[in-house]
Amino acid sequence: MKIHIVKIGGHLINDRKYLHDSLNAFCKLQGYKVLIHGGGRKADLISKKMGIYPKMIQGRRMTDKETLDIVVMTYAGIINKNIVALLQSYHCNALGLCGADGNCIKSYLRKIKNIDYGYVGDINLKSVNTYLIKFLLKNNIIPVLCSITHNGTGHLLNTNADTIAAYIAMSLASEKGCEVELHFCFEKKGVLRNVKDSESYFREINFHLFKKMKQNHTITNGMIPKLENAFFALQNGVSKVSIGLPNYLNDVKNKTMLCL
Amino acid sequence: MKIHIVKIGGHLINDRKYLHDSLNAFCKLQGYKVLIHGGGRKADLISKKMGIYPKMIQGRRMTDKETLDIVVMTYAGIINKNIVALLQSYHCNALGLCGADGNCIKSYLRKIKNIDYGYVGDINLKSVNTYLIKFLLKNNIIPVLCSITHNGTGHLLNTNADTIAAYIAMSLASEKGCEVELHFCFEKKGVLRNVKDSESYFREINFHLFKKMKQNHTITNGMIPKLENAFFALQNGVSKVSIGLPNYLNDVKNKTMLCL
Repeated sequence: MKIHIVKIGGHLINDRKYLHDSLNAFCKLQGYKVLIHGGGRKADLISKKMGIYPKMIQGRRMTDKETLDIVVMTYAGIINKNIVALLQSYHCNALGLCGADGNCIKSYLRKIKNIDYGYVGDINLKSVNTYLIKFLLKNNIIPVLCSITHNGTGHLLNTNADTIAAYIAMSLASEKGCEVELHFCFEKKGVLRNVKDSESYFREINFHLFKKMKQNHTITNGMIPKLENAFFALQNGVSKVSIGLPNYLNDVKNKTMLCL
Repeated sequence: MKIHIVKIGGHLINDRKYLHDSLNAFCKLQGYKVLIHGGGRKADLISKKMGIYPKMIQGRRMTDKETLDIVVMTYAGIINKNIVALLQSYHCNALGLCGADGNCIKSYLRKIKNIDYGYVGDINLKSVNTYLIKFLLKNNIIPVLCSITHNGTGHLLNTNADTIAAYIAMSLASEKGCEVELHFCFEKKGVLRNVKDSESYFREINFHLFKKMKQNHTITNGMIPKLENAFFALQNGVSKVSIGLPNYLNDVKNKTMLCL
Protein backbone atom coordinates (compact mmCIF):
# COMPACT_ATOMS: atom_id res chain seq x y z
CA MET A 1 0.00 0.00 0.00
CA LYS A 2 1.15 3.54 -0.79
CA ILE A 3 0.68 6.02 2.05
CA HIS A 4 1.05 9.80 2.09
CA ILE A 5 2.04 11.37 5.40
CA VAL A 6 1.21 15.08 5.32
CA LYS A 7 2.29 17.49 8.01
CA ILE A 8 0.79 20.98 8.00
CA GLY A 9 2.56 23.80 9.81
CA GLY A 10 1.25 26.32 12.31
CA HIS A 11 0.94 29.22 9.83
CA LEU A 12 -1.37 27.15 7.62
CA ILE A 13 -3.59 26.28 10.58
CA ASN A 14 -4.00 29.81 11.85
CA ASP A 15 -4.96 31.37 8.52
CA ARG A 16 -8.49 30.55 7.34
CA LYS A 17 -7.65 30.58 3.62
CA TYR A 18 -4.41 28.61 4.03
CA LEU A 19 -6.23 26.02 6.13
CA HIS A 20 -8.96 25.54 3.51
CA ASP A 21 -6.31 25.28 0.75
CA SER A 22 -4.39 22.72 2.79
CA LEU A 23 -7.38 20.56 3.59
CA ASN A 24 -8.67 20.75 0.02
CA ALA A 25 -5.31 19.64 -1.36
CA PHE A 26 -5.15 16.89 1.27
CA CYS A 27 -8.61 15.64 0.24
CA LYS A 28 -7.53 15.46 -3.38
CA LEU A 29 -4.52 13.25 -2.62
CA GLN A 30 -5.20 9.80 -4.04
CA GLY A 31 -4.73 6.68 -1.93
CA TYR A 32 -4.07 6.19 1.75
CA LYS A 33 -3.16 9.29 3.74
CA VAL A 34 -2.52 10.58 7.25
CA LEU A 35 -2.60 14.23 8.36
CA ILE A 36 -0.39 15.56 11.17
CA HIS A 37 -0.51 18.97 12.81
CA GLY A 38 0.74 20.92 15.79
CA GLY A 39 -0.45 24.48 16.15
CA GLY A 40 2.11 26.61 17.98
CA ARG A 41 0.80 30.13 17.50
CA LYS A 42 -2.78 29.31 18.48
CA ALA A 43 -1.48 27.89 21.77
CA ASP A 44 0.48 31.11 22.33
CA LEU A 45 -2.68 33.19 21.84
CA ILE A 46 -4.67 31.08 24.29
CA SER A 47 -1.78 31.14 26.77
CA LYS A 48 -1.64 34.90 26.68
CA LYS A 49 -5.43 35.17 27.15
CA MET A 50 -5.00 33.07 30.28
CA GLY A 51 -2.13 35.26 31.47
CA ILE A 52 0.49 32.57 30.88
CA TYR A 53 3.44 33.56 28.74
CA PRO A 54 5.09 30.90 26.54
CA LYS A 55 8.61 29.97 27.50
CA MET A 56 10.84 29.14 24.53
CA ILE A 57 14.29 27.54 24.64
CA GLN A 58 16.22 27.40 21.35
CA GLY A 59 13.01 27.69 19.31
CA ARG A 60 11.28 24.92 21.23
CA ARG A 61 8.52 25.34 23.75
CA MET A 62 9.30 24.76 27.42
CA THR A 63 6.31 22.73 28.58
CA ASP A 64 5.46 23.18 32.27
CA LYS A 65 2.21 21.72 33.67
CA GLU A 66 0.13 24.80 32.78
CA THR A 67 1.58 24.91 29.27
CA LEU A 68 0.95 21.19 28.79
CA ASP A 69 -2.74 21.73 29.60
CA ILE A 70 -2.86 24.56 27.08
CA VAL A 71 -1.19 22.63 24.26
CA VAL A 72 -3.46 19.62 24.89
CA MET A 73 -6.54 21.87 24.79
CA THR A 74 -5.32 23.63 21.68
CA TYR A 75 -3.80 20.85 19.60
CA ALA A 76 -6.02 17.89 20.56
CA GLY A 77 -9.07 20.08 21.21
CA ILE A 78 -9.83 23.11 19.14
CA ILE A 79 -7.43 22.61 16.22
CA ASN A 80 -7.82 18.86 15.78
CA LYS A 81 -11.61 18.87 16.04
CA ASN A 82 -12.10 21.85 13.74
CA ILE A 83 -9.85 20.22 11.12
CA VAL A 84 -11.78 16.96 11.42
CA ALA A 85 -15.14 18.76 11.11
CA LEU A 86 -13.91 20.61 7.99
CA LEU A 87 -12.57 17.42 6.41
CA GLN A 88 -15.86 15.67 7.13
CA SER A 89 -17.67 18.52 5.38
CA TYR A 90 -15.48 17.79 2.31
CA HIS A 91 -16.60 14.13 2.50
CA CYS A 92 -13.20 13.01 3.74
CA ASN A 93 -13.81 10.52 6.57
CA ALA A 94 -11.34 12.00 9.07
CA LEU A 95 -10.91 10.82 12.65
CA GLY A 96 -8.82 12.88 15.07
CA LEU A 97 -6.25 11.26 17.33
CA CYS A 98 -3.65 12.15 19.88
CA GLY A 99 -0.96 9.65 20.80
CA ALA A 100 -3.00 8.27 23.71
CA ASP A 101 -5.97 7.34 21.49
CA GLY A 102 -5.76 3.64 20.77
CA ASN A 103 -2.19 3.86 22.14
CA CYS A 104 -1.29 5.45 18.84
CA ILE A 105 2.07 7.01 19.80
CA LYS A 106 3.85 6.19 23.02
CA SER A 107 6.64 8.51 24.09
CA TYR A 108 9.03 8.85 27.01
CA LEU A 109 9.73 11.98 29.03
CA ARG A 110 12.78 13.76 27.66
CA LYS A 111 15.73 13.33 30.03
CA ILE A 112 17.16 16.53 31.50
CA LYS A 113 20.68 17.25 30.20
CA ASN A 114 21.51 20.95 30.07
CA ILE A 115 17.96 22.11 29.60
CA ASP A 116 14.72 20.92 31.24
CA TYR A 117 12.11 21.07 28.48
CA GLY A 118 9.40 19.95 30.91
CA TYR A 119 6.57 17.66 29.78
CA VAL A 120 8.09 16.87 26.41
CA GLY A 121 7.87 13.36 24.99
CA ASP A 122 10.54 11.91 22.73
CA ILE A 123 9.74 9.06 20.40
CA ASN A 124 11.62 6.34 18.55
CA LEU A 125 10.94 3.79 15.81
CA LYS A 126 9.02 1.58 18.27
CA SER A 127 6.68 4.38 19.38
CA VAL A 128 4.17 4.28 16.56
CA ASN A 129 1.21 1.88 16.61
CA THR A 130 1.35 1.11 12.88
CA TYR A 131 -1.22 -1.65 13.37
CA LEU A 132 -3.86 0.91 14.39
CA ILE A 133 -2.97 3.37 11.63
CA LYS A 134 -3.08 0.71 8.91
CA PHE A 135 -6.28 -0.74 10.39
CA LEU A 136 -7.99 2.67 10.18
CA LEU A 137 -6.68 3.37 6.67
CA LYS A 138 -7.81 -0.01 5.35
CA ASN A 139 -11.29 0.75 6.70
CA ASN A 140 -11.54 4.10 4.90
CA ILE A 141 -10.86 6.15 8.02
CA ILE A 142 -8.33 8.94 7.66
CA PRO A 143 -6.26 9.58 10.80
CA VAL A 144 -5.67 13.22 11.74
CA LEU A 145 -2.96 13.25 14.37
CA CYS A 146 -2.05 16.11 16.66
CA SER A 147 1.36 16.42 18.28
CA ILE A 148 0.35 15.18 21.75
CA THR A 149 1.66 11.77 22.84
CA HIS A 150 1.38 9.71 26.03
CA ASN A 151 3.87 7.75 28.13
CA GLY A 152 1.65 4.75 28.89
CA THR A 153 1.33 5.54 32.59
CA GLY A 154 -1.48 8.06 32.21
CA HIS A 155 0.50 11.15 31.29
CA LEU A 156 0.20 13.23 28.16
CA LEU A 157 3.35 14.76 26.68
CA ASN A 158 4.11 17.43 24.10
CA THR A 159 5.99 16.15 21.04
CA ASN A 160 7.27 18.01 17.99
CA ALA A 161 4.86 17.56 15.06
CA ASP A 162 7.62 17.28 12.40
CA THR A 163 9.22 14.52 14.44
CA ILE A 164 5.91 12.68 14.75
CA ALA A 165 5.35 12.95 10.98
CA ALA A 166 8.85 11.59 10.27
CA TYR A 167 8.53 8.68 12.71
CA ILE A 168 5.08 7.70 11.46
CA ALA A 169 6.45 7.74 7.91
CA MET A 170 9.52 5.65 8.85
CA SER A 171 7.53 3.17 10.94
CA LEU A 172 5.04 2.57 8.14
CA ALA A 173 7.86 2.41 5.55
CA SER A 174 9.51 -0.38 7.56
CA GLU A 175 6.40 -2.57 7.15
CA LYS A 176 6.22 -5.10 4.36
CA GLY A 177 4.49 -3.81 1.24
CA CYS A 178 4.29 -0.17 2.37
CA GLU A 179 5.58 2.68 0.21
CA VAL A 180 5.56 5.99 2.06
CA GLU A 181 5.84 9.61 0.92
CA LEU A 182 6.31 12.38 3.47
CA HIS A 183 5.20 15.95 2.77
CA PHE A 184 6.00 18.89 5.01
CA CYS A 185 3.59 21.68 4.10
CA PHE A 186 4.10 25.26 5.20
CA GLU A 187 3.47 28.79 3.95
CA LYS A 188 6.45 28.94 1.56
CA LYS A 189 7.19 27.34 -1.78
CA GLY A 190 10.09 25.39 -0.30
CA VAL A 191 13.44 25.87 1.42
CA LEU A 192 14.53 29.37 0.39
CA ARG A 193 18.01 30.44 -0.70
CA ASN A 194 17.11 33.99 0.25
CA VAL A 195 14.44 34.43 2.92
CA LYS A 196 13.40 37.75 1.37
CA ASP A 197 12.67 36.18 -2.03
CA SER A 198 9.72 33.77 -1.92
CA GLU A 199 10.61 32.43 -5.40
CA SER A 200 14.17 31.52 -4.44
CA TYR A 201 13.34 28.01 -3.30
CA PHE A 202 15.63 25.05 -3.95
CA ARG A 203 14.13 22.49 -6.38
CA GLU A 204 16.22 19.82 -4.77
CA ILE A 205 18.49 19.48 -1.74
CA ASN A 206 20.67 16.44 -1.26
CA PHE A 207 22.29 15.36 1.99
CA HIS A 208 25.71 16.70 0.97
CA LEU A 209 24.24 20.15 0.21
CA PHE A 210 22.29 20.11 3.50
CA LYS A 211 25.48 19.49 5.49
CA LYS A 212 27.19 22.35 3.63
CA MET A 213 24.21 24.66 4.26
CA LYS A 214 24.38 23.92 7.97
CA GLN A 215 28.12 24.71 8.02
CA ASN A 216 27.63 27.96 6.06
CA HIS A 217 24.61 28.97 8.16
CA THR A 218 22.59 29.46 4.96
CA ILE A 219 19.52 27.91 6.59
CA THR A 220 17.68 29.24 9.59
CA ASN A 221 17.46 27.58 13.00
CA GLY A 222 13.84 26.54 12.54
CA MET A 223 14.56 24.79 9.23
CA ILE A 224 17.45 22.65 10.52
CA PRO A 225 15.40 20.21 12.67
CA LYS A 226 12.79 19.94 9.88
CA LEU A 227 15.48 18.99 7.34
CA GLU A 228 17.14 16.65 9.84
CA ASN A 229 13.81 14.86 10.28
CA ALA A 230 13.39 14.77 6.51
CA PHE A 231 16.82 13.22 5.79
CA PHE A 232 16.45 10.80 8.70
CA ALA A 233 13.18 9.65 7.08
CA LEU A 234 14.87 9.15 3.69
CA GLN A 235 17.66 7.19 5.37
CA ASN A 236 15.03 4.95 6.95
CA GLY A 237 13.02 3.76 4.01
CA VAL A 238 10.71 6.69 3.22
CA SER A 239 10.66 6.91 -0.58
CA LYS A 240 10.07 10.66 -1.10
CA VAL A 241 10.22 13.74 1.11
CA SER A 242 9.06 17.19 0.00
CA ILE A 243 8.78 20.63 1.60
CA GLY A 244 6.49 23.32 0.22
CA LEU A 245 3.05 24.84 -0.13
CA PRO A 246 0.02 22.60 0.42
CA ASN A 247 -1.34 23.72 -2.98
CA TYR A 248 1.36 21.63 -4.68
CA LEU A 249 0.81 18.46 -2.64
CA ASN A 250 -0.35 16.67 -5.79
CA ASP A 251 2.45 18.08 -7.90
CA VAL A 252 6.07 16.98 -8.22
CA LYS A 253 7.18 20.49 -9.19
CA ASN A 254 6.95 23.81 -7.33
CA LYS A 255 8.47 22.59 -4.09
CA THR A 256 11.74 21.43 -2.57
CA MET A 257 12.38 17.73 -3.05
CA LEU A 258 14.90 16.12 -0.76
CA CYS A 259 17.20 13.27 -1.77
CA LEU A 260 20.11 11.39 -0.28
CA MET B 1 -23.90 -8.20 21.61
CA LYS B 2 -24.44 -6.65 25.03
CA ILE B 3 -23.23 -3.05 25.31
CA HIS B 4 -22.86 -0.82 28.36
CA ILE B 5 -23.20 2.91 27.79
CA VAL B 6 -21.69 4.77 30.74
CA LYS B 7 -22.00 8.50 31.22
CA ILE B 8 -19.88 10.17 33.89
CA GLY B 9 -20.89 13.54 35.27
CA GLY B 10 -18.89 16.72 35.73
CA HIS B 11 -18.28 16.30 39.48
CA LEU B 12 -16.63 12.92 38.87
CA ILE B 13 -14.34 14.38 36.23
CA ASN B 14 -13.15 17.32 38.29
CA ASP B 15 -12.23 15.32 41.40
CA ARG B 16 -9.07 13.21 41.09
CA LYS B 17 -10.26 10.40 43.37
CA TYR B 18 -13.74 10.25 41.86
CA LEU B 19 -12.26 10.14 38.37
CA HIS B 20 -9.95 7.24 39.23
CA ASP B 21 -12.85 5.36 40.89
CA SER B 22 -15.02 5.96 37.84
CA LEU B 23 -12.42 4.81 35.34
CA ASN B 24 -11.49 1.79 37.46
CA ALA B 25 -15.12 0.71 37.68
CA PHE B 26 -15.55 1.30 33.94
CA CYS B 27 -12.49 -0.87 33.19
CA LYS B 28 -13.95 -3.72 35.28
CA LEU B 29 -17.23 -3.76 33.34
CA GLN B 30 -17.37 -6.96 31.34
CA GLY B 31 -18.22 -6.93 27.64
CA TYR B 32 -18.58 -4.10 25.16
CA LYS B 33 -18.67 -0.58 26.56
CA VAL B 34 -18.70 3.09 25.62
CA LEU B 35 -17.83 6.02 27.91
CA ILE B 36 -19.45 9.45 27.54
CA HIS B 37 -18.53 12.65 29.33
CA GLY B 38 -19.08 16.39 29.29
CA GLY B 39 -17.18 18.45 31.81
CA GLY B 40 -19.11 21.61 32.71
CA ARG B 41 -17.21 22.95 35.71
CA LYS B 42 -13.78 22.61 34.13
CA ALA B 43 -15.01 24.70 31.19
CA ASP B 44 -16.23 27.33 33.65
CA LEU B 45 -12.80 27.50 35.30
CA ILE B 46 -11.02 27.90 31.97
CA SER B 47 -13.58 30.49 30.84
CA LYS B 48 -13.00 32.56 33.95
CA LYS B 49 -9.21 32.35 33.53
CA MET B 50 -9.73 33.78 30.04
CA GLY B 51 -11.99 36.52 31.39
CA ILE B 52 -15.13 35.04 29.81
CA TYR B 53 -18.04 34.43 32.15
CA PRO B 54 -20.36 31.48 31.45
CA LYS B 55 -23.88 32.41 30.50
CA MET B 56 -26.52 29.97 31.77
CA ILE B 57 -30.20 29.84 30.73
CA GLN B 58 -32.43 27.50 32.75
CA GLY B 59 -29.46 25.40 33.87
CA ARG B 60 -28.07 25.06 30.34
CA ARG B 61 -25.04 26.78 28.96
CA MET B 62 -25.54 29.56 26.41
CA THR B 63 -22.90 28.76 23.80
CA ASP B 64 -21.63 31.82 21.93
CA LYS B 65 -18.58 31.50 19.63
CA GLU B 66 -16.06 32.14 22.41
CA THR B 67 -17.80 29.65 24.69
CA LEU B 68 -17.94 27.05 21.91
CA ASP B 69 -14.16 27.30 21.52
CA ILE B 70 -13.75 26.83 25.25
CA VAL B 71 -16.02 23.80 25.52
CA VAL B 72 -14.32 22.19 22.51
CA MET B 73 -10.89 22.78 24.08
CA THR B 74 -12.05 21.51 27.44
CA TYR B 75 -14.28 18.55 26.55
CA ALA B 76 -12.58 17.24 23.39
CA GLY B 77 -9.12 18.40 24.48
CA ILE B 78 -7.99 18.28 28.05
CA ILE B 79 -10.74 16.12 29.58
CA ASN B 80 -11.11 13.59 26.79
CA LYS B 81 -7.39 13.08 26.27
CA ASN B 82 -6.56 12.80 29.96
CA ILE B 83 -9.33 10.21 30.41
CA VAL B 84 -8.03 8.25 27.42
CA ALA B 85 -4.43 8.38 28.73
CA LEU B 86 -5.59 7.14 32.16
CA LEU B 87 -7.67 4.32 30.65
CA GLN B 88 -4.71 3.30 28.49
CA SER B 89 -2.56 3.14 31.64
CA TYR B 90 -5.15 0.68 33.06
CA HIS B 91 -4.75 -1.43 29.87
CA CYS B 92 -8.15 -0.40 28.58
CA ASN B 93 -7.76 0.36 24.86
CA ALA B 94 -9.64 3.67 24.84
CA LEU B 95 -9.94 5.97 21.85
CA GLY B 96 -11.34 9.47 22.28
CA LEU B 97 -13.92 10.88 19.92
CA CYS B 98 -16.05 13.93 19.39
CA GLY B 99 -19.07 13.76 17.12
CA ALA B 100 -17.05 14.94 14.10
CA ASP B 101 -14.55 12.07 14.36
CA GLY B 102 -15.53 9.45 11.81
CA ASN B 103 -18.83 11.37 11.54
CA CYS B 104 -19.74 9.76 14.83
CA ILE B 105 -22.62 12.07 15.86
CA LYS B 106 -24.21 14.54 13.49
CA SER B 107 -26.41 17.23 15.02
CA TYR B 108 -28.37 20.23 13.82
CA LEU B 109 -28.26 23.74 15.23
CA ARG B 110 -31.06 24.22 17.75
CA LYS B 111 -33.75 26.48 16.30
CA ILE B 112 -34.40 29.72 18.14
CA LYS B 113 -37.83 29.77 19.81
CA ASN B 114 -37.95 31.88 22.95
CA ILE B 115 -34.29 31.48 23.83
CA ASP B 116 -31.20 31.51 21.63
CA TYR B 117 -28.90 28.86 23.09
CA GLY B 118 -26.23 29.68 20.52
CA TYR B 119 -24.01 26.94 19.05
CA VAL B 120 -25.99 24.07 20.53
CA GLY B 121 -26.56 20.92 18.53
CA ASP B 122 -29.66 18.80 18.94
CA ILE B 123 -29.68 15.16 17.92
CA ASN B 124 -32.22 12.51 16.98
CA LEU B 125 -32.30 8.76 16.47
CA LYS B 126 -30.61 9.11 13.08
CA SER B 127 -27.68 11.14 14.45
CA VAL B 128 -25.51 8.32 15.77
CA ASN B 129 -23.07 6.45 13.52
CA THR B 130 -23.73 3.04 15.09
CA TYR B 131 -21.69 1.39 12.34
CA LEU B 132 -18.52 3.14 13.54
CA ILE B 133 -19.19 2.47 17.22
CA LYS B 134 -19.87 -1.22 16.66
CA PHE B 135 -16.88 -1.46 14.32
CA LEU B 136 -14.57 -0.04 17.00
CA LEU B 137 -16.07 -2.23 19.75
CA LYS B 138 -15.72 -5.40 17.69
CA ASN B 139 -12.06 -4.54 17.16
CA ASN B 140 -11.36 -4.16 20.88
CA ILE B 141 -11.32 -0.38 20.79
CA ILE B 142 -13.31 1.38 23.51
CA PRO B 143 -14.89 4.66 22.37
CA VAL B 144 -14.68 7.58 24.81
CA LEU B 145 -17.06 10.24 23.57
CA CYS B 146 -17.18 13.84 24.62
CA SER B 147 -20.29 15.99 24.26
CA ILE B 148 -19.21 17.89 21.14
CA THR B 149 -21.01 17.10 17.89
CA HIS B 150 -20.83 18.47 14.33
CA ASN B 151 -23.43 19.52 11.78
CA GLY B 152 -21.75 18.03 8.69
CA THR B 153 -20.92 21.40 7.14
CA GLY B 154 -17.73 21.97 9.11
CA HIS B 155 -19.18 23.34 12.33
CA LEU B 156 -18.79 21.92 15.82
CA LEU B 157 -21.72 22.20 18.21
CA ASN B 158 -22.21 21.76 21.95
CA THR B 159 -24.60 18.95 22.88
CA ASN B 160 -25.78 17.78 26.29
CA ALA B 161 -23.82 14.70 27.41
CA ASP B 162 -26.82 12.94 29.01
CA THR B 163 -28.71 13.33 25.75
CA ILE B 164 -25.79 11.90 23.76
CA ALA B 165 -25.58 8.92 26.12
CA ALA B 166 -29.32 8.25 25.79
CA TYR B 167 -29.32 8.52 21.98
CA ILE B 168 -26.26 6.31 21.58
CA ALA B 169 -27.95 3.73 23.83
CA MET B 170 -31.23 3.92 21.90
CA SER B 171 -29.56 3.83 18.48
CA LEU B 172 -27.54 0.75 19.38
CA ALA B 173 -30.57 -0.89 21.04
CA SER B 174 -32.51 -0.52 17.79
CA GLU B 175 -29.95 -2.66 15.96
CA LYS B 176 -30.53 -6.37 15.55
CA GLY B 177 -28.89 -8.50 18.25
CA CYS B 178 -27.88 -5.58 20.49
CA GLU B 179 -28.82 -5.48 24.18
CA VAL B 180 -27.98 -2.13 25.75
CA GLU B 181 -27.68 -0.95 29.36
CA LEU B 182 -27.36 2.74 30.14
CA HIS B 183 -25.67 3.97 33.32
CA PHE B 184 -25.67 7.59 34.44
CA CYS B 185 -22.87 7.94 37.02
CA PHE B 186 -22.58 10.96 39.27
CA GLU B 187 -21.43 11.80 42.81
CA LYS B 188 -24.54 10.55 44.62
CA LYS B 189 -25.92 7.09 45.34
CA GLY B 190 -28.96 7.74 43.20
CA VAL B 191 -31.96 10.04 42.89
CA LEU B 192 -32.47 11.38 46.43
CA ARG B 193 -35.79 11.76 48.27
CA ASN B 194 -34.14 14.36 50.46
CA VAL B 195 -31.18 16.25 48.99
CA LYS B 196 -29.68 16.67 52.47
CA ASP B 197 -29.60 12.91 53.12
CA SER B 198 -27.18 11.08 50.83
CA GLU B 199 -28.64 7.70 51.87
CA SER B 200 -32.20 8.64 50.95
CA TYR B 201 -31.95 7.42 47.37
CA PHE B 202 -34.81 5.67 45.58
CA ARG B 203 -34.08 2.00 44.81
CA GLU B 204 -36.48 2.18 41.91
CA ILE B 205 -38.43 4.87 40.08
CA ASN B 206 -41.09 3.95 37.58
CA PHE B 207 -42.57 6.28 34.97
CA HIS B 208 -45.73 6.87 36.98
CA LEU B 209 -43.73 7.91 40.06
CA PHE B 210 -41.52 10.16 37.91
CA LYS B 211 -44.56 12.02 36.55
CA LYS B 212 -45.86 12.46 40.11
CA MET B 213 -42.45 13.70 41.30
CA LYS B 214 -42.41 16.29 38.56
CA GLN B 215 -45.91 17.48 39.52
CA ASN B 216 -44.99 17.63 43.24
CA HIS B 217 -41.66 19.32 42.53
CA THR B 218 -39.89 16.64 44.62
CA ILE B 219 -37.03 16.49 42.10
CA THR B 220 -34.67 19.30 41.25
CA ASN B 221 -34.46 21.07 37.91
CA GLY B 222 -31.15 19.42 36.98
CA MET B 223 -32.51 15.92 37.57
CA ILE B 224 -35.61 16.31 35.39
CA PRO B 225 -33.86 16.27 31.96
CA LYS B 226 -31.63 13.38 33.12
CA LEU B 227 -34.69 11.31 34.08
CA GLU B 228 -36.50 12.33 30.91
CA ASN B 229 -33.55 11.04 28.90
CA ALA B 230 -33.55 7.88 30.99
CA PHE B 231 -37.25 7.09 30.48
CA PHE B 232 -37.06 7.99 26.81
CA ALA B 233 -34.24 5.42 26.51
CA LEU B 234 -36.34 2.74 28.25
CA GLN B 235 -39.27 3.52 25.96
CA ASN B 236 -36.96 3.04 22.98
CA GLY B 237 -35.51 -0.39 23.55
CA VAL B 238 -32.75 0.18 26.14
CA SER B 239 -33.04 -2.76 28.53
CA LYS B 240 -31.82 -1.18 31.79
CA VAL B 241 -31.14 2.36 32.98
CA SER B 242 -29.47 3.19 36.31
CA ILE B 243 -28.39 6.35 38.11
CA GLY B 244 -25.77 6.29 40.86
CA LEU B 245 -22.17 6.23 41.98
CA PRO B 246 -19.59 4.82 39.54
CA ASN B 247 -18.38 2.45 42.31
CA TYR B 248 -21.58 0.42 41.88
CA LEU B 249 -21.44 0.17 38.09
CA ASN B 250 -20.96 -3.59 38.36
CA ASP B 251 -23.63 -3.96 41.01
CA VAL B 252 -27.41 -4.14 40.65
CA LYS B 253 -27.95 -2.72 44.15
CA ASN B 254 -26.91 0.59 45.71
CA LYS B 255 -28.30 2.81 42.98
CA THR B 256 -31.55 4.02 41.48
CA MET B 257 -32.92 1.66 38.84
CA LEU B 258 -35.48 3.08 36.46
CA CYS B 259 -38.35 1.10 34.98
CA LEU B 260 -41.41 1.82 32.89
